[in-house]
Amino acid sequence: MTKPFSFSITARDGRARTGAIATPRGVVRTPAFMTVGTGATVKAMFPEDVAAAGADIILANTYHLMLRPGAERVHRLGGLHQFMHWEKPILTDSGGYQVMSLAKLRRITEDGVTFQSHIDGATIELTPERAIDVQCLLGADIQMVLDECTPFPATRDEARASLDLSMRWAERSKAAFSERAAPGQALFGIVQGSVYPDLREQSARALIGMDFDGYAIGGLAVGEGQDAMFDMVEVTAARLPEDRPRYLMGVGTPEDLVGAIARGIDMFDCVMPTRSGRHCQAFTWRGKRNLRNARYAEDPTPLDAESWCPAAQYERAYLHHLVRSNETLGAMLLTYANVQFYQELMARARDAIIQGRFAAFADDIRRRYADGDEDDG
Amino acid sequence: MTKPFSFSITARDGRARTGAIATPRGVVRTPAFMTVGTGATVKAMFPEDVAAAGADIILANTYHLMLRPGAERVHRLGGLHQFMHWEKPILTDSGGYQVMSLAKLRRITEDGVTFQSHIDGATIELTPERAIDVQCLLGADIQMVLDECTPFPATRDEARASLDLSMRWAERSKAAFSERAAPGQALFGIVQGSVYPDLREQSARALIGMDFDGYAIGGLAVGEGQDAMFDMVEVTAARLPEDRPRYLMGVGTPEDLVGAIARGIDMFDCVMPTRSGRHCQAFTWRGKRNLRNARYAEDPTPLDAESWCPAAQYERAYLHHLVRSNETLGAMLLTYANVQFYQELMARARDAIIQGRFAAFADDIRRRYADGDEDDG
Repeated sequence: MTKPFSFSITARDGRARTGAIATPRGVVRTPAFMTVGTGATVKAMFPEDVAAAGADIILANTYHLMLRPGAERVHRLGGLHQFMHWEKPILTDSGGYQVMSLAKLRRITEDGVTFQSHIDGATIELTPERAIDVQCLLGADIQMVLDECTPFPATRDEARASLDLSMRWAERSKAAFSERAAPGQALFGIVQGSVYPDLREQSARALIGMDFDGYAIGGLAVGEGQDAMFDMVEVTAARLPEDRPRYLMGVGTPEDLVGAIARGIDMFDCVMPTRSGRHCQAFTWRGKRNLRNARYAEDPTPLDAESWCPAAQYERAYLHHLVRSNETLGAMLLTYANVQFYQELMARARDAIIQGRFAAFADDIRRRYADGDEDDG
Repeated sequence: MTKPFSFSITARDGRARTGAIATPRGVVRTPAFMTVGTGATVKAMFPEDVAAAGADIILANTYHLMLRPGAERVHRLGGLHQFMHWEKPILTDSGGYQVMSLAKLRRITEDGVTFQSHIDGATIELTPERAIDVQCLLGADIQMVLDECTPFPATRDEARASLDLSMRWAERSKAAFSERAAPGQALFGIVQGSVYPDLREQSARALIGMDFDGYAIGGLAVGEGQDAMFDMVEVTAARLPEDRPRYLMGVGTPEDLVGAIARGIDMFDCVMPTRSGRHCQAFTWRGKRNLRNARYAEDPTPLDAESWCPAAQYERAYLHHLVRSNETLGAMLLTYANVQFYQELMARARDAIIQGRFAAFADDIRRRYADGDEDDG
């Protein structure tokens, strides 16, 4: 018998909490950072290294996969897990955000969104029902409702109209999911409402009425700034049920993560560790480093001696040489080191919550990442 | 005490031979294929995977490394092995070939060659003495004399003049090596002479008089065709001492390799497995495959079920998706699979020689790679 999806909290420290999401494909320790595997691959990483780095779950993109290689094709090939050699849980976003940021010639109606593929220009229709259909074909363990990611800035009226549409789409997503999903699969709602606290509350209330397995906060980290983001996280998290996972979408820097965990968030995803790894940037326990910097040309010390990651044991001078030479191995090593840093950050956050010292831990992370300086300490 | 460089032959089958080159950094089983790590990295591979794929030795490029990051810098950082996290033997070419193929504004004199760096336009002088100096700074276990890689086609007079210069440079290389090399390091001479048997013989004789640790055959696989290449290999190998390794430079396809092994060659290097891996091409036990080909879009079978390589266990449909999407993981997996295929090919060749069935083995390889068809067999 398939075990149901469940969430349990094992320790709290202030509003921060740590626990576990159980899925048929394994347990996700929370707070969890989901490494992004957009096109059925975490870019420049072997899937076994993603697991070795500590990842319990990855995120894949409905939008990208429905365009290439196609959801039906992935389904015929045994589903996304088998296709991409990743046996642990996968969360898929619904495509709403990517339609807004990547597709051309979008047209949004009550029914859904019609857009042109950024790959081959084909006209594609994405409705709440089709988004669930695609996620079921992929076999995603955690699926997301289709929403309209409200652009920033938005007036209150724009934000309310967008929110209302998203809530109607959430209901249709939920209905479609109830019909089609396999046992043990979960569906999360997405709170919208831009930077308006009352709209965020209204959105949370509406979604809770529909009873989702978890609740995401969307439409943030889109230019509103960290203070406004934290305000909205606080307002929203306060309205969400204690016993369901809370997922802050598309966030963020190490400081963003500890700040959001302190406000009760359990899950995150962001391209930052992987994208930075392909752009010479390393996240380390001594802050961020740009390996292109000439200061590293003869630096014989490891990238990050404080990390357990095998990639972080490579010397900075060698990494500098690789990135200056545009060698793929540079992107491979920095991506690996960054993915593992984010996982180690989450592991330390979980320990700090259990030990009741999360505030001090968060302060320490803020200090390490404070000034953007590269301090060899 | 450092063990000296040595070569021993353990079995013969016709003119084919198998054995071992002992170096202070480990044993190289022959026939050996040296994976190319031009710029202090086998492109798109972790060094531990290069070793796991079966490689006993890699080749690095004097020309590239003297330009970036610089031989003195690598030396200050502990030498090339430590710099690139590769503990086993490294052979470095002398740079002669790359100066001809990559550098701009070359000027060759008796003293050496002056050229402009293809990276930053700097004017660089490479003499036989400097080529040895650079290879000693890198800490290469097997070093190559500086030679002029005779362009193809060349008239007999051109080939002879070029050869004479290379032989004078070989003497100077040998003298410089005797002064500067560390215990256990080896120096190979390079036979030139274009497609003229008597010039090849003359070149071999001249080098043998200088007593090198091994003998390379250069200036082939430059457009002369396989028949002419095999003719020159035969003529040359017949003149080379039995008790020294013979290295055919820059070769080649699986058919080239078995043909040259049958003619007494012990060592090879070529960018083919790594470069092909970055260009959607896979070498398998059923021939070559282009993973971009639409026929693989829904092929659920492994790339090469006959291979032991973990990368070759990935399904063709997934690899097709990765290469179509220009995902780095596609290049990583195909490079790994190709590097391991070449090592498995050498391992099977060694076994076949020991078991006295090399001719049948070579025929089998030729048949598998015969028609360039992609037979799913």
